[in-house]
Amino acid sequence: MSSNSFRGVLLVICGFVLSLVTDTASAQGPDAEPLPSWNDGPAKSSIVEFVAKVTTADSPTFVPLGERIAVFDNDGTLWCEQPMYVQLAFAIDRIKALAPQHPEWQTQAPFAAVLKDDLKAVMVGGEAALLELVMASHAGMTTTEFDAIAREWIRTARHPKLNRPYTECVYQPMLELLSFLRSHGFKTYIVSGGGVEFIRPWAEQVYGIPPEQVIGSSIQTQYVVRDDQPVLVRLPKIDFIDDKSGKPVGIQRIIGRRPLMAFGNSDGDFQMLEWTTTGEGPRFGLLVHHTDGLREYAYDRQSSIGRLDRGLTEAVSRKWTVIDMQTDWKTVFPESK
Amino acid sequence: MSSNSFRGVLLVICGFVLSLVTDTASAQGPDAEPLPSWNDGPAKSSIVEFVAKVTTADSPTFVPLGERIAVFDNDGTLWCEQPMYVQLAFAIDRIKALAPQHPEWQTQAPFAAVLKDDLKAVMVGGEAALLELVMASHAGMTTTEFDAIAREWIRTARHPKLNRPYTECVYQPMLELLSFLRSHGFKTYIVSGGGVEFIRPWAEQVYGIPPEQVIGSSIQTQYVVRDDQPVLVRLPKIDFIDDKSGKPVGIQRIIGRRPLMAFGNSDGDFQMLEWTTTGEGPRFGLLVHHTDGLREYAYDRQSSIGRLDRGLTEAVSRKWTVIDMQTDWKTVFPESK
Repeated sequence: MSSNSFRGVLLVICGFVLSLVTDTASAQGPDAEPLPSWNDGPAKSSIVEFVAKVTTADSPTFVPLGERIAVFDNDGTLWCEQPMYVQLAFAIDRIKALAPQHPEWQTQAPFAAVLKDDLKAVMVGGEAALLELVMASHAGMTTTEFDAIAREWIRTARHPKLNRPYTECVYQPMLELLSFLRSHGFKTYIVSGGGVEFIRPWAEQVYGIPPEQVIGSSIQTQYVVRDDQPVLVRLPKIDFIDDKSGKPVGIQRIIGRRPLMAFGNSDGDFQMLEWTTTGEGPRFGLLVHHTDGLREYAYDRQSSIGRLDRGLTEAVSRKWTVIDMQTDWKTVFPESK
Repeated sequence: MSSNSFRGVLLVICGFVLSLVTDTASAQGPDAEPLPSWNDGPAKSSIVEFVAKVTTADSPTFVPLGERIAVFDNDGTLWCEQPMYVQLAFAIDRIKALAPQHPEWQTQAPFAAVLKDDLKAVMVGGEAALLELVMASHAGMTTTEFDAIAREWIRTARHPKLNRPYTECVYQPMLELLSFLRSHGFKTYIVSGGGVEFIRPWAEQVYGIPPEQVIGSSIQTQYVVRDDQPVLVRLPKIDFIDDKSGKPVGIQRIIGRRPLMAFGNSDGDFQMLEWTTTGEGPRFGLLVHHTDGLREYAYDRQSSIGRLDRGLTEAVSRKWTVIDMQTDWKTVFPESK
């Protein structure tokens, strides 16, 4: 046998073993303990049963590997979004760091309010003010430079109330869910209203999700050659808003097929869940309901951040699973390192 | 041992065997015969040696799995682009099929020229005319409907000179190259100036490239709910042109990291190769030079389709491999089915 055919045989055997492992895992029952931080109950069961249904070979509802796409919102679904979106905290820190180069910001809204830590005054400016902060803090550098800035910030910044790095404000049950799905042949994607280039630098290490499986909002970039070295310059112009009806658009644009499972927590995820669960055959939608004011935050219909209103009203009729954080999750955050 | 830990051990063993197989394959030498349709020579050697260099474990130039990204232009690189882009042939057939619903097209440029098969008159209208044809033929339906239209067309249409389905006008040596790279842990992407939704329906079957690994030009879509069923409607508005300087932009937007290898054939691919090969560490760029008027087409610096001018001039100084189709490829097309 040549080394080439030997290699071929090895590949075939491993492929076979992997497919067996993947496709029978779901039939192993409770001793497999795939989601240790989840309490037993209808929410956990709905996940485990759905995965069994689509990964059991010879089942009429079996779904081939390539079609096993699972999409996850980030803010409030994979990590904590209170008391403000993490990316806004990043923008504020950036504005403060850049302020010495911009003396005019001392008196100019919304920058002056940021520099005085007056978040309420910032919010008075609404979306336009936030957009201005994002452009001032996220544009004007190359993609490589922005990557380094985001990486350094996330390495050092800490959540104001939970008092730990933001990368440890992710939800332990969701980390287990991501692994569980991947071990069953799912490709896991982030589909976030946040900026794609803000999430990519740390998503692989924290969630096991590579850069090409992160979809998010974006600003335009321009290809420029400087001294024979090409760079991509980030421009202060919106390219795409990956929120609400934009989420199915972003999914089609980048993945090119309808997901099998969708996970969100706010009405910004409504259309993503709607698009996913109205597809043919078995589909799965889940909303994280923030009910745990003690261990995390409690908010839903009235919240300005992560409002969950329509989703909560329609979840039952649409057969979406709703996670009650207080009762469904044994632990919320991973052990601090 | 619980069945879960047994499964874990199996996964670890298979992962280990697969990584061994992947990482030592390149050290096997000539008996492996990875590219049977390529003649021996500097072009073939440059590919095989580069892949060995980045996949040999313990080598100082070793590149981990996730970073092994290879990007391929489509028209003229993976399949024949003469005597006209295949997608233009598709647009023309669509215009003819839709003409009965548009009596005004009989006298209106550029449609009248299309209906009279007067391609020269169409070309007189330049890019604006082509854009009008694309919008009329590619927009106004849902993404699902367009997928079905493209699928049906590609199943039945035939190349006018080669007299075979377009999906058999792909280059056999490039099919082997795609497989060779994937067997060494590369993720293979299409990065085309053509429409992403025109390529996705058949790319997996023909090239082994799934929808989420196709990047291309696109028109805007809108999420609309019709009778409780959401659809994505294709609008007659350009979203993104994935050509020239747009290719690095599209790559960053969707992949989020710089490729290791890039393959093209025209100056529309110049920036993609430039972006790829100016990255740190080992990088690889290749241009297909169409030199074979007998088996395919011969064209380069003067061609209106797939012009290769600057790339040909700068290939040597940039250390890009140039394929001479006539001498480097033993066969051009796969055996007809």
